[in-house]
Amino acid sequence: MKFNITAKLLYQVVTPGTIILNIHALHTPGQTITEEKFTITPYSKFEELTSAHGENRFIRFDLPQQGTVEVKYSAIVDNNTKLIDFTDQPEVAICDLDPEIFPYLYPSRYCQSDKLYRFAMHHFGMLNNTFEKVAALTDWIHENVQYLSGSTNSQTSAFDTVTELAGVCRDFAHLGIALCRALSIPARYFTGYAYKLSPPDFHACFEAFIGGQWVLFDATKLAPLNGLVKIATGRDAADTAIATIYGEVSFLSMAINSEFADNNFEPFYYDSKTLTGISYM
Amino acid sequence: MKFNITAKLLYQVVTPGTIILNIHALHTPGQTITEEKFTITPYSKFEELTSAHGENRFIRFDLPQQGTVEVKYSAIVDNNTKLIDFTDQPEVAICDLDPEIFPYLYPSRYCQSDKLYRFAMHHFGMLNNTFEKVAALTDWIHENVQYLSGSTNSQTSAFDTVTELAGVCRDFAHLGIALCRALSIPARYFTGYAYKLSPPDFHACFEAFIGGQWVLFDATKLAPLNGLVKIATGRDAADTAIATIYGEVSFLSMAINSEFADNNFEPFYYDSKTLTGISYM
Amino acid sequence: MKFNITAKLLYQVVTPGTIILNIHALHTPGQTITEEKFTITPYSKFEELTSAHGENRFIRFDLPQQGTVEVKYSAIVDNNTKLIDFTDQPEVAICDLDPEIFPYLYPSRYCQSDKLYRFAMHHFGMLNNTFEKVAALTDWIHENVQYLSGSTNSQTSAFDTVTELAGVCRDFAHLGIALCRALSIPARYFTGYAYKLSPPDFHACFEAFIGGQWVLFDATKLAPLNGLVKIATGRDAADTAIATIYGEVSFLSMAINSEFADNNFEPFYYDSKTLTGISYM
Amino acid sequence: MKFNITAKLLYQVVTPGTIILNIHALHTPGQTITEEKFTITPYSKFEELTSAHGENRFIRFDLPQQGTVEVKYSAIVDNNTKLIDFTDQPEVAICDLDPEIFPYLYPSRYCQSDKLYRFAMHHFGMLNNTFEKVAALTDWIHENVQYLSGSTNSQTSAFDTVTELAGVCRDFAHLGIALCRALSIPARYFTGYAYKLSPPDFHACFEAFIGGQWVLFDATKLAPLNGLVKIATGRDAADTAIATIYGEVSFLSMAINSEFADNNFEPFYYDSKTLTGISYM
Repeated sequence: MKFNITAKLLYQVVTPGTIILNIHALHTPGQTITEEKFTITPYSKFEELTSAHGENRFIRFDLPQQGTVEVKYSAIVDNNTKLIDFTDQPEVAICDLDPEIFPYLYPSRYCQSDKLYRFAMHHFGMLNNTFEKVAALTDWIHENVQYLSGSTNSQTSAFDTVTELAGVCRDFAHLGIALCRALSIPARYFTGYAYKLSPPDFHACFEAFIGGQWVLFDATKLAPLNGLVKIATGRDAADTAIATIYGEVSFLSMAINSEFADNNFEPFYYDSKTLTGISYM
Repeated sequence: MKFNITAKLLYQVVTPGTIILNIHALHTPGQTITEEKFTITPYSKFEELTSAHGENRFIRFDLPQQGTVEVKYSAIVDNNTKLIDFTDQPEVAICDLDPEIFPYLYPSRYCQSDKLYRFAMHHFGMLNNTFEKVAALTDWIHENVQYLSGSTNSQTSAFDTVTELAGVCRDFAHLGIALCRALSIPARYFTGYAYKLSPPDFHACFEAFIGGQWVLFDATKLAPLNGLVKIATGRDAADTAIATIYGEVSFLSMAINSEFADNNFEPFYYDSKTLTGISYM
Repeated sequence: MKFNITAKLLYQVVTPGTIILNIHALHTPGQTITEEKFTITPYSKFEELTSAHGENRFIRFDLPQQGTVEVKYSAIVDNNTKLIDFTDQPEVAICDLDPEIFPYLYPSRYCQSDKLYRFAMHHFGMLNNTFEKVAALTDWIHENVQYLSGSTNSQTSAFDTVTELAGVCRDFAHLGIALCRALSIPARYFTGYAYKLSPPDFHACFEAFIGGQWVLFDATKLAPLNGLVKIATGRDAADTAIATIYGEVSFLSMAINSEFADNNFEPFYYDSKTLTGISYM
Repeated sequence: MKFNITAKLLYQVVTPGTIILNIHALHTPGQTITEEKFTITPYSKFEELTSAHGENRFIRFDLPQQGTVEVKYSAIVDNNTKLIDFTDQPEVAICDLDPEIFPYLYPSRYCQSDKLYRFAMHHFGMLNNTFEKVAALTDWIHENVQYLSGSTNSQTSAFDTVTELAGVCRDFAHLGIALCRALSIPARYFTGYAYKLSPPDFHACFEAFIGGQWVLFDATKLAPLNGLVKIATGRDAADTAIATIYGEVSFLSMAINSEFADNNFEPFYYDSKTLTGISYM
C-alpha cells in the first residue's frame, strides 16, 4: 500500500540552536520509500544520523539565526504489511528469545511493567494464546481509558494511566506496552503517520512480539492498523521524540497529512475473535 | 591491573526452569580476560548470548531437574584503565553526540531525569566543567544518602531516593545517572566485581560520558574506582540484572570475591578538586 | 449483641518512653461497655485522653524502666446495631451535609480520592442508589484485590492498591474510602475487634455516610459485619494508630480475641441485592 | 492591627448549583471582626456553617438560575498578634500534647510527613530549639523552591515539591507542614488575606505548634507575617478550599484586597537568629 505523507513544522528561533528531528519514514524490509523530500527554509545544511539498530532516522541541523524556520517533509512510502493468523501460532518461549529482544521485556520510564504484574495477570493471565492476551488488553484500554486531549503531560506514565483512565495516543501506547511486558510479552513503542487520523497528527501505538514477529496494536482505534507509515520504534516515548531542541527555539505549529496513493484502501482492524494481526515487517 | 574474580551462586530448583545469568566479565578494548572458568553442578549445557552492542554477556542454561544447582564462575581479568585530567577538557556539545549515546540521555525506569531537572540545575547547574558537575553530584549523593541495606526494593527509583535519602549501591547509581541526565550529561549503569568491597557482593556504580569518554563514578565510595571488573552496562538496573529466572527456582546464597593479582594496588578515588577521573575503555 | 474482647500486648523497653494506645472499645450511643479492665505490668499510672469528637480513646502511660511490659485489656461490650433497608432511602444532598461530615469527603494521606475520580465514576458512577454504589465498590475490591499479608507497608495508599491489587485489611479499607469520596460519598476508617476473624488481630474496615447514617462495609469479608466492637474512627489509618510510641520501645507480640457472649450469633453480611446495610450507631 | 479586606468573586452558572465558600475572616480570640458585609448578586439566601472546632466559616448558598453571579465580601478586622521570644522556651513533649493537637502530627493528603522523615532529620534534626528548626526549614524552602505560577496543580503534594522545587504558596505551605510533622512538630495549613501581597490573591502559609502556641511561618516570604487576616486552618489545603462547587458553575474572576486601616504598619518577618516568632491567638 502506498501513502503520500507530508509534515510541515514551524519554529521560532530566539537564540541560535540545534534541532534533531525524528519525522522521516523509516527504511525497513517492508517499508520502501520511493520518493522523499526535505527542506528547511531559510536553507540550512542538515545531516542524517541513524541509530544503532536502525529504529530511528535522526535529522540534525543548526538554526543559526533568529526568526521563523519552516521544515517540510514529504514522501511516498510503499508498505508491505502481513496479516497473520495467530490461532495456532507456536509461541517462542521467553527464555529462547534473541538477546536483541530482551530490552523490550524490561520496564522503562513510562512503562513500569514491574508495578503492573498483578494487574496484568489478574485481568489477562487466564488467556492462553499470546495474541488473544494482547488483543484483550488493547480492548481493555480502549474501553476503560478515555481519549482526552490535554489530560496528561510529558511525565505521565502507564502507572498513572491505569488508574486515571484518561490520556492521548502516547498514554494508550505506554499502557499497552507496560501490560504486555508485565505478561512477559516483549513490546515496543511505534510512532508514525496514520491514514485517516482525525485531527491529523503524528500517531503513537505499539508492537508486541508474538510468534517471532512484531505485531501492531492501537488501543485508541483511531486509525486503521494497515494505514500507518513507521517513523521510529523504541522502548517508549523517551526513545522516539519527534523533535529534540537545543537552544531557545519554540515550536509554533505543524500540519501533518497522510493520503492513500493507490485505489482501494481496505481498512484493517484486528478482531480479538479471529486472532488475526498485522505485522509491519 | 589484574584481578582474580570468583562467584559462586546456589539455586534451589522446584520445577524445571531456565536461568539467564549476567555475571561474566565483559570483553572490552580495555578489559582482557586471560582465564575464565564456568561450571554448573549438576552439569547442564549452557550457551552465551551477546547483546546487540556487547554491553552484556548473557549465559543461558536450563535447570531440568529438581534439587540444588551450584554455579561457579572464575576469571583472571586484566584491566587497562586510563586516568584523565578534565581541567581543560573541551566538551562535546550534546547536539554533536553520536546517536548511539542518545539513549543514555533519556529518562529510564529507575532514573527519571525528567523529574529532576530543576533539582539538578539548582544544585549543580552553576558549575561550568562537566567533570566537576558529575563529581559534585556524586559527592552530594555520598553526603546525603545513607547506605542502608534493606531500605529499598526492586521498585525504588531515583525519584524516591532523592527524598528518602537511603539505599544501596543500586540506588546510589540510579540517582547519579538521573542527575547527570537531568544536566544533559549521558550516563549509564555499570555492574561489576569490586575489589575491597565489604561485605563482598556484586557492585553497581555509573559512568558519565565526558569529553567523549565514559568516566566511572561511585557515590557509595565503598571501593576504589580502579578496582572494578566490568560485567555489564545499561540504561539502569533493568538492563543488567545479575540473574533472570524462568520457572520456580529460588536463589539460596552467593559468594563473590575479587582479589588483586599483581603486586601493588594503588587505590584511586576521584577528587573533585584535581578534576581527574578514570575511564574503563 | 454482647462480646467479650481481650487484647494482650507485649513491649520491650530499651530506654524510658511513653506509649499512647488506642485499643479501648469506644463509648458511643450504640455501644455500651458493661465491664472493662486495663492493666500494665509492671504497674504504671495511665491516663485516658479523649479526642475532640470522641472518635478515639487514647490511653497514655510512661515506660519508666528497661525491661518487658505487658499490657492487658479486656471488656464486655454490648452493641446495638441497626439493619437498614436502603431501597428507597432518600439521599442527603452533599451540599446539605453537616459541616462535621465535610472532612470525610476530602482526600487524605492514604485515600487520594482526588486521583480516583475518573476510575470511580467509570466503574460505579452509573449506579443510582448510594448504598448500591458502596456495595458495588466493596465487591469490586473484594474480587480484585488479593488479601496478602506482608505485601504492603505503612506507606501504601489507595492509589497504590487500586493498581497493585494486593494488601491487608488496612489497604482494603483505604481503597473503599477513597472510592467513596471520589463518588462524593463521605467515608471514614473504622478499627475494631472482629468476631471470628482468623487469625485473630485488630481489624480495619470502613463506614460510608448514606442517608444520614454511618453504614459499615468490609471489603475483606473476613468477618461478619455485625461482629465488630468499635475502637476508633478517623479519616484513615493515620488517625487511628493502635499504638504510638515515644522512646526506644519495641513491640514484641500480641494476642487479640473476641468472643460472643450471648447465645445465638447470626452473622450478617450486606448483600448488594437486598440493599440492606448495618449501622453502628 | 486593623485591616480592611475585600473579596469579589465572579461565577458563571450553567446549571443550578450550590456553592460553599470559605472566605470569611475567622472569629478567634485574637481576631475581632468589627464590620462585615456579604452580598450575592443577584440576591440569594445564604447560611453560615461553622466547622466543629471553629477552624472554618462555611457560607453555603444556592445558585438557582443561569447567568453570572457576583459575590462580594468586605470586613474590617482587628488582629491581636503576639511576638514571642523562643530563645529559652520550654518545649511541650509530644507525648504531653493535648489530643486535639494529635491530628496535626499525622501525615495528610498533601503533607506526607511519613515519607520525609529522613530528609527532615538529615537537614534539621541537629538543631535543638524547635523554633530554630521550623525557621531553618522555612528558610530552606524559601531558598530552594522557586515560586512559579502554574508550575503545580491541585494534586501536587509536599513529596513532589521537595524534589521538583517549584510551586505556589500552597505548595510552600504543604512542604513546611510536612517537614514539621516529620520532625514531630505539629503543623497546620493557614489561609488568609495577606497585606502587601503582590499580585493580590488569597494566601496560604502555615502554623507550627511551638511551646504550646501556634506560630506563623511563610516560606514564600511574600508578605509580612503580621499582615494576615485568618480565614481558616486545617490539616492541609484539602480542609480549607476557598470554594466548593456543586453543579455546573465556572469560576470567572476574582479581586482580592487587604489594606491597613491604622496609621503605622511595621512589617514583621521572623528572623532565624533572634528566635522571635509571631502567633495569631
